[in-house]
Amino acid sequence: MDQVSVAVVGAGIAGLTCARELARAEARVTVFERSRGLGGRLGTRRQGNFAFDHGAQFVTARSRPFVKYVEIAGRAGVVLPWRPRILEDDRAWDAPIEEWHVGAPGMSALVRPLARGLDVMMGVGVNELLQGQRGWEVQTDSGRAPRTFDAVAVAVPAPQALALLGPHGRTFRHIADVRMAPCWAAMVTFDAPVDVGAEVRRWTTGALSWAACDSSKPGRPVGPQAWTLHASVPWSREHLEADSQEVARLLLHEFGRSTGTPLPAPSHLAAHRWRHAYAEQALGLPCLVDEEIAAGACGDWCIAPRVEAAYESGRTLAHSLLSTVGLASPALLR
Amino acid sequence: MDQVSVAVVGAGIAGLTCARELARAEARVTVFERSRGLGGRLGTRRQGNFAFDHGAQFVTARSRPFVKYVEIAGRAGVVLPWRPRILEDDRAWDAPIEEWHVGAPGMSALVRPLARGLDVMMGVGVNELLQGQRGWEVQTDSGRAPRTFDAVAVAVPAPQALALLGPHGRTFRHIADVRMAPCWAAMVTFDAPVDVGAEVRRWTTGALSWAACDSSKPGRPVGPQAWTLHASVPWSREHLEADSQEVARLLLHEFGRSTGTPLPAPSHLAAHRWRHAYAEQALGLPCLVDEEIAAGACGDWCIAPRVEAAYESGRTLAHSLLSTVGLASPALLR
Repeated sequence: MDQVSVAVVGAGIAGLTCARELARAEARVTVFERSRGLGGRLGTRRQGNFAFDHGAQFVTARSRPFVKYVEIAGRAGVVLPWRPRILEDDRAWDAPIEEWHVGAPGMSALVRPLARGLDVMMGVGVNELLQGQRGWEVQTDSGRAPRTFDAVAVAVPAPQALALLGPHGRTFRHIADVRMAPCWAAMVTFDAPVDVGAEVRRWTTGALSWAACDSSKPGRPVGPQAWTLHASVPWSREHLEADSQEVARLLLHEFGRSTGTPLPAPSHLAAHRWRHAYAEQALGLPCLVDEEIAAGACGDWCIAPRVEAAYESGRTLAHSLLSTVGLASPALLR
Repeated sequence: MDQVSVAVVGAGIAGLTCARELARAEARVTVFERSRGLGGRLGTRRQGNFAFDHGAQFVTARSRPFVKYVEIAGRAGVVLPWRPRILEDDRAWDAPIEEWHVGAPGMSALVRPLARGLDVMMGVGVNELLQGQRGWEVQTDSGRAPRTFDAVAVAVPAPQALALLGPHGRTFRHIADVRMAPCWAAMVTFDAPVDVGAEVRRWTTGALSWAACDSSKPGRPVGPQAWTLHASVPWSREHLEADSQEVARLLLHEFGRSTGTPLPAPSHLAAHRWRHAYAEQALGLPCLVDEEIAAGACGDWCIAPRVEAAYESGRTLAHSLLSTVGLASPALLR
């Protein structure tokens, strides 16, 4: 049999996990990623010597496959446990319920091992998927990809997944049921130390939902104190189209107000808008697959807004596509 | 290689789907079911000539594997589309967003094809799972099962799954994060016809959340008009330990009040308590699996309170266990 070829759209943890599982089963996999960095919302934003985790802040691991992955990444030194002091509203968490893990030196380190050895086309956005006579054709923003694919896996936020797969049948129209919420993230550094009583502050009401001292995470370079602030969903929605410098200023002000702490002038201040940050209403399935046309979608938005859900969704889609195209699942090939 | 043997606990749609996928891959599967009927919350309660769907009321299908399953069941005549008129609070649904399917003559017909050819031990409750030297041992309420198993799949509501798997390691302790909500269901028949303006009434507040004319579903025997009434979660919680006849009377009264319709005396009136009806807070993973000990859990409570989620959870767990025990996935064996 000729080598089965699969196009994976998106190099977040869902797409890379899916791609890796397919590649382990001897499929020929090409990953297309619009941005110039791996990891999607597990991204890391460099700023001088420091890197902010401006998207996902930590991961938890519940099911053995992801536990094992975190353990292996831990042995490679790219994942470390993080045990911050936490204040939620004004209540201290004595002990976190689950162990929190972070990538080192940044969250994106968590996905990099998944990409090893994969054919990843960075900075190549996919605009359209076409069912041609010899398989799937991929229309990118730099032209038609030179080869066709036996199967496609789409691992991007729900609205983009709908745009790519919606035209290919009833199955994918259900992606429209998924509701994603935005999140404005501000990134701040202070040269003088700031004490707000804990490394993590969370709020259930108000403009901010999360503030974490990123520089308190293990494996970070020594330097200024760096904070990532996440706005609440209502606030992010209300300010969705606002100017990012203005948003950064507002969130920094809110941080001082909510913590009751006078803040020194920041040495760096910026904001990033995650237009599709969380699945507020998930699909309610592990992944979405149409076996007849060998196409599927995966992502945290299928299951729940958790990094591990993205990983498991990508893994499940890979196994579904493998049986569709007639390949053995990876465990059989070890 | 000797035939791989797997014990599946629970004969709801998650357990039966898991069992069927394992059996298709040539595993030797034994399903243990505490009650005397298949289907779990896809149950059907007989009353004279009629059968009530007192649990799940209908199914929707989004992903191709389940779409295909519903189509096959449709061709066998055990699943039919249901297009009731719907009033939610006082707002009419012009067209339901998704196609609703029901089992015929009752919801449990939907799972019966899954059980065909499987070794199902009905009326045998599992009290404990033990890791013995030669594999998993199953302690039932009628003694130790005569054989040991290479793997176990637990497909029962979260609290029972926790009791069975919790002692077997960290992975399964996360089942404790799942929060399930109860639902009191009343079953009523009237000899005189009753018109409440629609075949389905739904409410977002108050004691009732759902009332459906079960006898309006296709494939039901002609006879008296039969309604299933579901209490809301807060009401069900508040009356959790109440007497079932009293609950039935209260819900019937509420039905008349909420619809503004004078009701004739019922010819039959009963109530059933679903102690674990819905996953209010799901696990956020397709299933929970510990590959090292070849054990896993599945169910709607892993993903979302939807029948298809239970099906997909069972299917995903089967595929995980198949790679764990070194069997090819079913699609490869067709």
